Amino acid sequence: MDINILSEKIHHTLSTLRYGENPAELYEPIRYIMALGGKRIRPLLVLLSARMFDEDIDKALLPAAAVEVFHNFTLMHDDIMDKAPLRRGRQTVHEKWNANTAILSGDVMLVRAYQLLLHVEPDRLSRVIERFSETAAQVCEGQQLDMNFEQRLQVGIQEYIHMITLKTAVLLGFSLELGAILQGAPEADAGHLRAFGDNIGIAFQLRDDLLDVYGDKAKFGKQVGGDILSDKKTFLMLTALEQANQQQLQTITGWRDKTDETVAAEKVQAITAMYDELGIREQTEQQIELYFQRALQHLDAVQRPEENKVALRNLALQLMERDS
Amino acid sequence: MDINILSEKIHHTLSTLRYGENPAELYEPIRYIMALGGKRIRPLLVLLSARMFDEDIDKALLPAAAVEVFHNFTLMHDDIMDKAPLRRGRQTVHEKWNANTAILSGDVMLVRAYQLLLHVEPDRLSRVIERFSETAAQVCEGQQLDMNFEQRLQVGIQEYIHMITLKTAVLLGFSLELGAILQGAPEADAGHLRAFGDNIGIAFQLRDDLLDVYGDKAKFGKQVGGDILSDKKTFLMLTALEQANQQQLQTITGWRDKTDETVAAEKVQAITAMYDELGIREQTEQQIELYFQRALQHLDAVQRPEENKVALRNLALQLMERDS
Repeated sequence: MDINILSEKIHHTLSTLRYGENPAELYEPIRYIMALGGKRIRPLLVLLSARMFDEDIDKALLPAAAVEVFHNFTLMHDDIMDKAPLRRGRQTVHEKWNANTAILSGDVMLVRAYQLLLHVEPDRLSRVIERFSETAAQVCEGQQLDMNFEQRLQVGIQEYIHMITLKTAVLLGFSLELGAILQGAPEADAGHLRAFGDNIGIAFQLRDDLLDVYGDKAKFGKQVGGDILSDKKTFLMLTALEQANQQQLQTITGWRDKTDETVAAEKVQAITAMYDELGIREQTEQQIELYFQRALQHLDAVQRPEENKVALRNLALQLMERDS
Repeated sequence: MDINILSEKIHHTLSTLRYGENPAELYEPIRYIMALGGKRIRPLLVLLSARMFDEDIDKALLPAAAVEVFHNFTLMHDDIMDKAPLRRGRQTVHEKWNANTAILSGDVMLVRAYQLLLHVEPDRLSRVIERFSETAAQVCEGQQLDMNFEQRLQVGIQEYIHMITLKTAVLLGFSLELGAILQGAPEADAGHLRAFGDNIGIAFQLRDDLLDVYGDKAKFGKQVGGDILSDKKTFLMLTALEQANQQQLQTITGWRDKTDETVAAEKVQAITAMYDELGIREQTEQQIELYFQRALQHLDAVQRPEENKVALRNLALQLMERDS
């Protein structure tokens, strides 16, 4: 089965979900955010993982949708907290409606995610709910750490990796683990798939940090240097802060809080030059490679034939935009 | 077993709950709101219902705690939406910390409530999670309706009853149903207990509306007429709006939005006099009696000996502050 067919199944499943009707103020924002689209990468991971153990993946569709609904719940609430005006180029829910609506609609989305998870075999329900709940709490912890870090001047590299692991990676790991659990995979395989997802998630986030500075603007689709302009504590910045000499530190502190459009290009250029002096690009690429290789080792350790792993391996390569 | 022993068990169980440690900003607000106290009426209903079917109620303690954690999650989020400064005489979470913290800590509380529900017998888990989720979504619907009603001039009596049913009553109903499910009670009995709780919940909320105007200030512990001062659309006000003649309508509209302290006593007096003319007190008492009697009919219909029902019957009477 082609990966496009899986994507089509996910798309169809999501289109059949009914969240509720009355009051409309509660349910319309859910339909709105779910219709904004996105790559639906998490449900795809559920299905690809499930398919490694059993070709019949239809019974994994609703649990896969649960993960996507949960993910969009976190986006709805995070956008309030981050005061984000846009999501996928459209107004965020709290902007289009208001913060109260975004809080309450998000709450219902979390409940609906749990309800979608009820569509698993009864003897697997307890483990699914437990692992999902642990993951959900970790995602909240990650968001809180992210907010805490914004208020701090110094954040350690390991603290940062811990934060992105919780905020982003564990949900990818859980998606893969869920697919395995649903098909009755051995616990060791489910664990390796989770670890594969966790590590891919970290690598992917670090790559996101890298591309902000060294990405191809046309390909990346975002303004190059956006993180630099907003003084975001990315892996690159935190690494630079740890290794900078007096003069380089002054470059960083001198540009801090200067978010004015007129000096934007100059700021991005100055910080990038400092990154270049310190070899931040190469160091980041090394870290990405490290987590990517760790991920692949866990995929290798899954006790299934290579032909069952190839789709997941290719997706990982694709996420990293690599050929091999 | 005395009701005080059940309360003591609930108190002890709640004191043993561990929500998490890091980041502290996420978990401290949960400990804070849970420590504010309250009557813990919902877990008590779980236990009283459970005890009707099996004396061994210890296995119902963690699920009972789940309902209390969920209830406090709704308080934490509702207080943000209602911009409430105080909860049980102490600062609300969003006041003591900030709205973002209250959003995210609340989210984790909802997750923790689900985790506490995992402590049920495996073959009952699916039904418990499903019924809890349905109830949780209804509570959110009730809160949304309550916010909608604030923006409207006219709200029908039946709409109002529907709103308080969702916002307040169904969680009482679910608490009783949960106790029954946990002990393997027949479905009909679980349904009657839920209906008992739903109706008691409605009666209790109407009584709350009544006491705001006609309550004994010393006993009620709130300022008499607070709802009148804030133009709250209570059962009394909505009934008056439906039955008022031209002159009485002018009394209402004339006083609307007049929240100034200096005219407070005069406003409460004028609206109360208008209520008296219309016999609002008696009509409200009749409605309370109606729902209370419906509740008792459902309790009567439960297929257990009267001696097993007496504690629940007495608690209902106590909630209504009645002797019989």
